[in-house]
Amino acid sequence: MTEKVVIIGGGAAGPKTAAKLRRERSDLKIDLYTQEDIISYSACGLPYFIENIIQDADTLILRTPEDFKKQNIDVHIKQKCLKVDTENQTVTVQDLISNNIYEVHYNILVIATGAIPVMPDIPNIDLKNIYTLRTIQDGINIKQKMLSSKKAVLLGGGYISIEVMEALVQNNIQVTLIEKNHQILKMFDEDFSQRIMDYIIGRNPGQVSILTNEEVVAFSGNENGEVEKIITSSGKEIETDFVVLGTGVRPNTDFLINTDIKLGVNQSIKVDKTLKTSKQGVYAVGDCTDNFNLVTNRYTWVPMGSTANKEGRCAAINIAGGNCTFDGILNSTITKYFDLTISIIGISYRDAIQFGFQPEYAIVTKRDKAGYMPNTGTMTLKLIVDKNTHTILGIQGIGDGDVNQRINAVIPAILSKTKLESFMNLDLPYSPPYSPAIDPVLNAAQIIYQKING
Amino acid sequence: MTEKVVIIGGGAAGPKTAAKLRRERSDLKIDLYTQEDIISYSACGLPYFIENIIQDADTLILRTPEDFKKQNIDVHIKQKCLKVDTENQTVTVQDLISNNIYEVHYNILVIATGAIPVMPDIPNIDLKNIYTLRTIQDGINIKQKMLSSKKAVLLGGGYISIEVMEALVQNNIQVTLIEKNHQILKMFDEDFSQRIMDYIIGRNPGQVSILTNEEVVAFSGNENGEVEKIITSSGKEIETDFVVLGTGVRPNTDFLINTDIKLGVNQSIKVDKTLKTSKQGVYAVGDCTDNFNLVTNRYTWVPMGSTANKEGRCAAINIAGGNCTFDGILNSTITKYFDLTISIIGISYRDAIQFGFQPEYAIVTKRDKAGYMPNTGTMTLKLIVDKNTHTILGIQGIGDGDVNQRINAVIPAILSKTKLESFMNLDLPYSPPYSPAIDPVLNAAQIIYQKING
Repeated sequence: MTEKVVIIGGGAAGPKTAAKLRRERSDLKIDLYTQEDIISYSACGLPYFIENIIQDADTLILRTPEDFKKQNIDVHIKQKCLKVDTENQTVTVQDLISNNIYEVHYNILVIATGAIPVMPDIPNIDLKNIYTLRTIQDGINIKQKMLSSKKAVLLGGGYISIEVMEALVQNNIQVTLIEKNHQILKMFDEDFSQRIMDYIIGRNPGQVSILTNEEVVAFSGNENGEVEKIITSSGKEIETDFVVLGTGVRPNTDFLINTDIKLGVNQSIKVDKTLKTSKQGVYAVGDCTDNFNLVTNRYTWVPMGSTANKEGRCAAINIAGGNCTFDGILNSTITKYFDLTISIIGISYRDAIQFGFQPEYAIVTKRDKAGYMPNTGTMTLKLIVDKNTHTILGIQGIGDGDVNQRINAVIPAILSKTKLESFMNLDLPYSPPYSPAIDPVLNAAQIIYQKING
Repeated sequence: MTEKVVIIGGGAAGPKTAAKLRRERSDLKIDLYTQEDIISYSACGLPYFIENIIQDADTLILRTPEDFKKQNIDVHIKQKCLKVDTENQTVTVQDLISNNIYEVHYNILVIATGAIPVMPDIPNIDLKNIYTLRTIQDGINIKQKMLSSKKAVLLGGGYISIEVMEALVQNNIQVTLIEKNHQILKMFDEDFSQRIMDYIIGRNPGQVSILTNEEVVAFSGNENGEVEKIITSSGKEIETDFVVLGTGVRPNTDFLINTDIKLGVNQSIKVDKTLKTSKQGVYAVGDCTDNFNLVTNRYTWVPMGSTANKEGRCAAINIAGGNCTFDGILNSTITKYFDLTISIIGISYRDAIQFGFQPEYAIVTKRDKAGYMPNTGTMTLKLIVDKNTHTILGIQGIGDGDVNQRINAVIPAILSKTKLESFMNLDLPYSPPYSPAIDPVLNAAQIIYQKING
């Protein structure tokens, strides 16, 4: 009998699993169910669609159900998973068009239901023109509204808000960002968060406001039910044409709460290094799973498109009978605000202390090429090393220079727990158009070495 | 009694040692002797001075003797070291202005005499307008000649010739490069060398010729003693206004041949991981020393400005009483030809076989950002892994995309002998302006994994 693999979820991880599994095994029946009407799209590209760097939303779609059909993968759109029964190996599905409910049998189940926006508990949050940004339709709605607007409010100071802010500023919108914590981008140390905020404010003075330590206590609307005003905890009233909620996401796992599939951090699905859940024959991949942090050696939940792709590929290899392990993550993130690259890998100095490390750090501001070359950019790097083990715990980097080049040189060193003493003499290639003779990231390592060795 | 540290050589490593040593120890007397009249300059920047990206040659000078004087370091220019006597701890020096010869006593000696061009044994090589490119004066001479010339010949197909070729092409010179081997850039595999050659020829068809398997058998000059023509081994006669010799360099160590300081590969100075030579109290740093290759575990000789800086710093720490080790190099190099980044780290597939590894490789050609983003560049990467140990042996990368970002992610993985299985799931940060969801370098690793695991 042909084994049947059922995949739930059509974002990044589910389609990746399906495609890779088909390449590995032509004999399996593969069915993918998704509640959306579009599959296999890049949600990370949505801010650039809003900005109009990308004109056509369809460009973000990597593969259509028809593409999958050619690979003998059956994609069922607008079919929502309601329940999983691991005893009888069935999934209960609702057809969102007819509302019919039916059961699907599986031999292998892959859960890839991703994450969904957290809706803050604020009065009148259901007013019109208050958006989340997760699906392509969200992106289309925001872009359309933006084109006839003058003012917007962003809630939450995470990466998505920074990316949407760039899009809005570029389209001449007056933007106010409201963050309840005392800093935006809370994974960064406070000093770096401040530098980033200074850049954002300084780039478009008067057009952008960032309010920290501030909460929205209510939205207020007009007679058409459209949001018109935000009332904040300090009593500010801010007029706006629309609102984008960047108040975080959570794993899309509510349908698993009363099952025997074990959940972990933030109700994400607990998986081992082979992407198996606690139940035989059930895998989970992508934004709905937990993640092992290789710096802190603790489970965490960091939904990332790159991790989703790797996990999908790895699970497919294992389902096919191979042997792939996904050891964990380093909390690696990068984004940009216009010319400013913003990146953090590993953990911040503050978090290092909190996790019981004895961190030392160095901050360097350097040009990215030999000083005498034209068109050099600059960067500020903050490298963090554990004084006990002399291993690297993290790096934060910002600047208009080639930050990512330096960040990447640190990542495998964190993974392999390379000692500071080896890292500072790492043979990074040198040529004036690419680097100063001593690379900035090695310079940071040398400074920490001096601090530790006195 | 004040200890006296004598440093011979004024390129990169000597001045670096002096400056770092002064920061570590204010009590030492530090004297630096150099046969040149300029110290502490970036020889690597000379092609960009010729190209006129850098207008003023002085820009390449990092520090002057006067700058060093302020740090209480005495720099003695135009003083050539003739002999080292490790028994009596003296250096014999010739004043190149007065021709006086005198002895200098040292407690600690640092040899940093660098490398000098190899002059090929070709008739009439002493004709006018045949240049080497090592000093600032060389750069000034070539640039001046170029400005009144139409045709040039470059001898040797190494990095310097590629960089000088860009400079000359940009200045409308008709360029012929002559390489005696069957490929240019011989550290690369033949396929990559061919791709690079195709790019160079294709970018300026008709303006650039590259002749491989070709040797110069004689130069021929006019009545003023200026080079006019090149005669090659296949009988070609090539008219030229000037010639730049890129036929390699050798360690500047002839003055040590009859001393008890042990020499290694290519007559480079044998040093241990603390930069000590075979004689107590004598250190050596920079282009004149041998290098330990951490991939092949063999001694080699690869003169690089970045290594010189690291070695100088490390030796200074050790002389000051600290504890710094320089473990070795990975043969990391990078350059560019106009928009094409050219880089190799570790060893090629060909060399891997020669050194007894069992290599597997993957070649990927990918965009450097998410495919839907504007202004993406492309790159071709060749990743090489040892099938026995599953460790990475090297990477070659070319392209107008962000090659260096990917190269850097491989370097610490080579150093730490990270397994392919870990590397292919490395948490490189993802955002559409910086990378596809699966980074090209991880994609290459995944392909090798498939090849190895069938």
